[in-house]
Amino acid sequence: MKASRWPTALLAIGLVVSAVVLDAAIARASDPLPSWKDGKAKQSIIAFVKKVTSTGSPDYVPPAERIATFDNDGTLWAEQPMYVQLAFALDRVRELAAAHPEWKQKQPFKAALEGDFKAVAAGGEHALLELIMATHAGMTTDEFAGTVSTWLASAKHPRFKRLYTGLVYQPMLELLAYLRANGFKTFIASGGGIELMRVFAGQVYGIPPEQVIGSSIKMAYEVRDGRPVLKRLPEIDFINDKAGKPVGIWRQIGRRPIAAFGNSDGDFEMLEWVTRGRGPHFGLLVHHDDAQREWAYDRKSPIGNLQRGLDQAPKRGWTVVSMQKDWITIFKP
Amino acid sequence: MKASRWPTALLAIGLVVSAVVLDAAIARASDPLPSWKDGKAKQSIIAFVKKVTSTGSPDYVPPAERIATFDNDGTLWAEQPMYVQLAFALDRVRELAAAHPEWKQKQPFKAALEGDFKAVAAGGEHALLELIMATHAGMTTDEFAGTVSTWLASAKHPRFKRLYTGLVYQPMLELLAYLRANGFKTFIASGGGIELMRVFAGQVYGIPPEQVIGSSIKMAYEVRDGRPVLKRLPEIDFINDKAGKPVGIWRQIGRRPIAAFGNSDGDFEMLEWVTRGRGPHFGLLVHHDDAQREWAYDRKSPIGNLQRGLDQAPKRGWTVVSMQKDWITIFKP
Repeated sequence: MKASRWPTALLAIGLVVSAVVLDAAIARASDPLPSWKDGKAKQSIIAFVKKVTSTGSPDYVPPAERIATFDNDGTLWAEQPMYVQLAFALDRVRELAAAHPEWKQKQPFKAALEGDFKAVAAGGEHALLELIMATHAGMTTDEFAGTVSTWLASAKHPRFKRLYTGLVYQPMLELLAYLRANGFKTFIASGGGIELMRVFAGQVYGIPPEQVIGSSIKMAYEVRDGRPVLKRLPEIDFINDKAGKPVGIWRQIGRRPIAAFGNSDGDFEMLEWVTRGRGPHFGLLVHHDDAQREWAYDRKSPIGNLQRGLDQAPKRGWTVVSMQKDWITIFKP
Repeated sequence: MKASRWPTALLAIGLVVSAVVLDAAIARASDPLPSWKDGKAKQSIIAFVKKVTSTGSPDYVPPAERIATFDNDGTLWAEQPMYVQLAFALDRVRELAAAHPEWKQKQPFKAALEGDFKAVAAGGEHALLELIMATHAGMTTDEFAGTVSTWLASAKHPRFKRLYTGLVYQPMLELLAYLRANGFKTFIASGGGIELMRVFAGQVYGIPPEQVIGSSIKMAYEVRDGRPVLKRLPEIDFINDKAGKPVGIWRQIGRRPIAAFGNSDGDFEMLEWVTRGRGPHFGLLVHHDDAQREWAYDRKSPIGNLQRGLDQAPKRGWTVVSMQKDWITIFKP
C-alpha cells in the first residue's frame, strides 16, 4: 500500500497548498467577495468580520472561538429539483435492482424504479427512510465512500447537465475562503448524511471530514479476517435538522458558533441559537428568488421550505441574501 | 456581556500563545521528551514521528492525516482509586442530598452518602448509571460546565492531596506537545463523559473542545424566556468505550487515526483499528507498574483492566510503556 500513498499525499499537499494560497490571495484582494454585488448583505458580512477580528475592538473574538457553521443543501449547493442525496439513493436503487427482484412489486422501490417521484414523495418520510436504508446501510464506511465517490464523478444534474459538485455557489465559496482567511474555522452543519458530504467537502469546500456535521446512521466495529471495519447499520443514529442542529453542533464541536448560514426553516434553530449567544454573532439566510439562473422557492416549497425564517429575519437582525440581486454569479464557473 | 469577554479573550490568547511557544520550544529542543528515559519506548515514538514527517520517505503522511487519539483516564491522568468522574458524581450527590431527603434510604445514593464505595460498586453498572444521571443530567450544558469547573478548582485527590488536574502525566504532556509540534492533530477518545473533559482539556492538555471525543447523554434544544439552551437529558446517547471507540472516533473525525494511545482493554479496539490501517501507524499502552510513585495494576484491576492488550502487544507491534522504568517523572511538577 505504500506506493499508492504517494499520489494521495501529493494530492493532499496540493490541495492544502492551493487552499492556503487561495485563502491568502482572497484576504489580500481589495474585494474579498467579488461575486457579491455591493449592498446590505455584502456590507453586513464584511462589517461583522472586521468587528470580530480587530484587536482592540470590544467585539474582538479570539481565533479559537471564530466558529462558523454552514448548512449544505440550498446554502452551499443546489437542492432542486431534489436533494442530491435522494438522487444518489434513486440511482443506487436502479443499480441494485437486479439483486432485488422483489423491488419491482414493492413500494417505495417500485415507484423509484419507475421514476415516479410523486409516488415516492407520497410515501412520506417512511418511504424516504426505506430508500435511504436500502442504499446507505449494510456496507462498510470505506465501501460507502467509494460508491459515493464513483457516483459523484459521473452523475449529472437533470437541468444543468453538470456534475453535482459543479453546482456549488461561487459566492459561498468566496465567503468560506474569506472567513478562513480571517481565522475562522468553517464547519458544515447539514440535515444531509454526514458520510456522503465527507466524501467531497474537502475538495469542493476546503472543509476536512472532522468539520462536517450531519445526520447519521448507527455503525458497528467488526474484524473481518483480521481486517477491522466499520459497518453501517440500517438504524437512524441522529437527525441533524431543525432543533437537532444546535444539538449536533454542540455534540461535535462543544462550542457555540458565532456565525451561522442557512436557507430554510431547517436552519431556524441553528440561527436562533447562534444569534442569541453572548458576544458578537451573525446569522444569514440565502433566499432562492432567482428562477432564471437557479430556482425561486420559499414558503410553499416542500424542499427548502422557508417561512418562519423570512418572517423573523428582520427583527432578529439576520441578513437575507437575494440570489437574484446580491449575487453576480450563482455557480462555480 | 461585552466587558466579560475580555478576560476570556486574553486568557484564550495567552493559552494559545503559550501552547505554540511551548510546542515550538519542545520541537527545537535536542530532547523533545525529557521525562522519558532512553529506551525502546521512547525510541519507538521518535522513530515513528521521524518516519511520517520526513518528506521523501515512503512512509510520509501529509499533516491533515496526522491524527492521534489518546484515551484519558489512566493514559493522560490518574484513574485510581476511582475515575475522577465518579469522584465528581459522589461529591455532587453529597451536595445535592439536602434537596433529596429520599436518598438517605435509597440505594445507590445511601451508599454514596455514607462513603460506602464497596456497596456502590456492588450495585454494578446500573448503580453507577443512576449516580451519573442524577448528577450529570437535568441542567443546561452551561450549568453543567460551571459545576465541573468549580469542582475541579477545589476538589483534591485523596492520596496526593492535589487538584485532579495536577495529576496529569508529565511524559504524556510532552508527547502531546511533541506530536503537535510535528503537525499532528491530537484528540482525546475516552470512555469518560465528553462534557466533563471539555471543561479542562484546553487548559490542561492544549486540546480544544472540538477535539474531545467521549461518552455522552442525550440533549434537547429549548428556548427559555427567549434564551436558547441545551438541556442535558437522563438518557445515554453513546458509550465511547471498547468497540465503541472506533465508532465514536469515526463519527466525530471521519478519518482513521495513525496513532493511538491507551492503557486498558477499553482501548483495545481503538489500537487494533488504528494499527491495522493502511500505511504507517503506531499503538502504545501505558502500563501502570509503579506502586511507589503511582499505582501498580493490570490483569486483576476492576479499573483500567489490562489483559488482552498486554498479551497481544508484542505480536501486534504495540509499544508498552513501563511507568516505572520508562518515565523519569510521573506527574506534572
